[in-house]
Amino acid sequence: MEKKEIPYKIYLEERELPRAWYNLRADMKKKPAPLLNPATGKPITEEELEPIFCRELARQELNDTDRFIPIPDEIVDFYKMYRPSPLVRAYCLEKKLGTPAKIYYKFEGNNTSGSHKLNSAIAQAYYAKEQGLVGVTTETGAGQWGTALSMACSYFGLDCKVFMVKCSYEQKPHRREVMRTYGADVTPSPSLLTEVGRKINAEFPGTTGSLGCAISEAVEAATTREGYRYVLGSVLSQVMLHQSIIGLETKAALDKYGVKADIVIGCAGGGSNLGGLIAPFMGEKISGKADYQIIAVEPASCPTLTRGKYLYDFCDTGRVCPLAKMYTLGSGFMPAPNHAGGLRYHGMSSTLSELYDEGLMEARAVKQTDVFAAAEYFARIEGILPAPESAHAIKVAMDEAIKCRETGEAKTIVFCLTGTGYFDMVSYGKYHDGVMSDYVPTDDEIAASLSKTPKLP
Amino acid sequence: MEKKEIPYKIYLEERELPRAWYNLRADMKKKPAPLLNPATGKPITEEELEPIFCRELARQELNDTDRFIPIPDEIVDFYKMYRPSPLVRAYCLEKKLGTPAKIYYKFEGNNTSGSHKLNSAIAQAYYAKEQGLVGVTTETGAGQWGTALSMACSYFGLDCKVFMVKCSYEQKPHRREVMRTYGADVTPSPSLLTEVGRKINAEFPGTTGSLGCAISEAVEAATTREGYRYVLGSVLSQVMLHQSIIGLETKAALDKYGVKADIVIGCAGGGSNLGGLIAPFMGEKISGKADYQIIAVEPASCPTLTRGKYLYDFCDTGRVCPLAKMYTLGSGFMPAPNHAGGLRYHGMSSTLSELYDEGLMEARAVKQTDVFAAAEYFARIEGILPAPESAHAIKVAMDEAIKCRETGEAKTIVFCLTGTGYFDMVSYGKYHDGVMSDYVPTDDEIAASLSKTPKLP
Repeated sequence: MEKKEIPYKIYLEERELPRAWYNLRADMKKKPAPLLNPATGKPITEEELEPIFCRELARQELNDTDRFIPIPDEIVDFYKMYRPSPLVRAYCLEKKLGTPAKIYYKFEGNNTSGSHKLNSAIAQAYYAKEQGLVGVTTETGAGQWGTALSMACSYFGLDCKVFMVKCSYEQKPHRREVMRTYGADVTPSPSLLTEVGRKINAEFPGTTGSLGCAISEAVEAATTREGYRYVLGSVLSQVMLHQSIIGLETKAALDKYGVKADIVIGCAGGGSNLGGLIAPFMGEKISGKADYQIIAVEPASCPTLTRGKYLYDFCDTGRVCPLAKMYTLGSGFMPAPNHAGGLRYHGMSSTLSELYDEGLMEARAVKQTDVFAAAEYFARIEGILPAPESAHAIKVAMDEAIKCRETGEAKTIVFCLTGTGYFDMVSYGKYHDGVMSDYVPTDDEIAASLSKTPKLP
Repeated sequence: MEKKEIPYKIYLEERELPRAWYNLRADMKKKPAPLLNPATGKPITEEELEPIFCRELARQELNDTDRFIPIPDEIVDFYKMYRPSPLVRAYCLEKKLGTPAKIYYKFEGNNTSGSHKLNSAIAQAYYAKEQGLVGVTTETGAGQWGTALSMACSYFGLDCKVFMVKCSYEQKPHRREVMRTYGADVTPSPSLLTEVGRKINAEFPGTTGSLGCAISEAVEAATTREGYRYVLGSVLSQVMLHQSIIGLETKAALDKYGVKADIVIGCAGGGSNLGGLIAPFMGEKISGKADYQIIAVEPASCPTLTRGKYLYDFCDTGRVCPLAKMYTLGSGFMPAPNHAGGLRYHGMSSTLSELYDEGLMEARAVKQTDVFAAAEYFARIEGILPAPESAHAIKVAMDEAIKCRETGEAKTIVFCLTGTGYFDMVSYGKYHDGVMSDYVPTDDEIAASLSKTPKLP
């Protein structure tokens, strides 16, 4: 292929926007373990999922055979408002680091929700609308997912009820206000509105909540209301599917310029951006068409892949959801306060867990202050103030680029810059003031949490 | 020209990035009135400006003859990180309004400073660096300019001292934290660090400041320090020059698709985005090559063009700056608190003032709650949460599109969406809570303020 000069920002044209999502599971030789019904211990069926999820989403959740799922036109039209997103060549960062490495990042923060979460939110809202539902319920931690879902629901005229982890609700009033601008109803979790919320409040008085608690509340709120379903922004296979648009665009942009990635890096909480980014690269790796080094980056304070176990666990604290086989720290794991709210989940997408277990990807855990140092460095050089979550990927991308400086290798490093940090300035302030904690859980703490994982019937 | 299908977002290619700014003054038949030295009443010279401004910027300030000024390569490289910015076809808004009008907006909020201010900040920082200066001082109201300058200074390794209007400093701690991330030194104004600040504090105890006060302090801080100069983000002719990149890109994108604008709309505080957006359109209008309806939109609470007078006035409250002939409400005018902090300046760019005086453009004043209603409507339809300043232009663009619905005319409306409102959520909250004021100054208040404009020697 003819080598073209690579601009700072590669924008695919609108007509190059992918028209189908890529379902990596269809190409996996060993499929991710199925979701189980906790009562029977048997694989869950579409019918069993339908009281919780929209019909089409239940179908997508269990589909591990169709390689491509067409993207409905209404979703494509919405995507056109902010996609294709730019793939940026980090010329300034490369120069500053003095590295022969070539660094690219897919920037998913160029929309009002401030992150990649909108890619799945609009799909989930669309299927809810198509099914004639009144509204959806969900949880949000850092607030990106709640914001994205509010935007998507507002676009399709759906009601949107968000349970926001209490500590985020209190720390991030501006995030709440954005959701309110988009007409959403936001409740701090654990609340007194649900049975499970009341129970958690009684058991842990004064708790500031967790994503696991908020999921339980949102599921209850959906299943006890006529015309509502529950939607989730990460972990699920359907979310990985929708997020594959990140990877498809990234690969298409690289292919267009004849560039082959060597290392692909994403931050990992539940796995939504990582799963989406790596999908087409992993597909080629599995088929032997090409090789890539793939790295998941997680916070040392919530080290699911690097220190968790691969077993069946509950997805939520209230234990109302199906069981998933995944790397987990235990559904009762309460991570130390950290400022990457989107990476505090106890588990990991079962697709990514399986790939990691098979050795098809690596994982690294990084400390919070190192992450903020990388974030500030990047902001000053590349002009984008990253979300703390995204900065996990930046940290490892910089580490790899520095290694290249030492070895002289001109590797091509690609990472996903999932979002912007405009609503995380309290966290940046703590970093500037030197009052940021680097707490890492002890082995005993993790073992204690894992000891409560369920016994299968 | 062949008509191509118009995408949702038009991105010019990197190689189409303008390589010269357009100096509209060179094409004006009647030139804007010169800046005057307040001591002598005579037109100010480059030499007199040089203690305040960088050398090259002083030259640009007085240059009304060169039509194009080449953009230095270092600035072009920085521009490439966020430019060309998208020109968006507002298909969703058109559909929702049911209008035959075609609406386009140039989106300048796709960078971390969140607004178009970065276009001039990077130019001013570059010339300061080139002159071997240590740093620059400035004022900021809403915080966009201060953020933009912090980013620009960080990029070139310059010190950056920002005097931030006290009420913004207190209301927007997150803006401050962004500037701090970029290494700037931010002081609430009026402060006790400058003579003029101490004087204003003594005269108006407890004042929460104004842009005019902050300018006086920043000028004093620059002129009393070795190796510093003052920079300003609006009003000045050099700023209009740098911001012409907005209009040049807009026009190039429209031309590429064979689209002719009918109406061009921008919000107007000091005039920076409006002056930049309209430059190439106004150039054609002056030469008779094409006709355009050009509309400046200002807040009814600070109605500089619609209710001010065209005369020589001070640019700052402390009266330390040169005199400019402009539409003004008087340099002591203190607008009622409103949430479009960037549109609270008492005067207007002398270029725009002259064009307005000659009837080459119109002006409209809009009320705050109407602006926020338009902002929220737009956010829900187009997916971008606008800055309150930008929403002034949205309001009038929507008004014009609705007129088209009534008359059946398919006019092409172009406006500048200057920035995002992520740091304005307190304002959105007030709007949602119904506690937003629509105060409009009385004729007596304006007359009283205007009575204090200077007598020329």
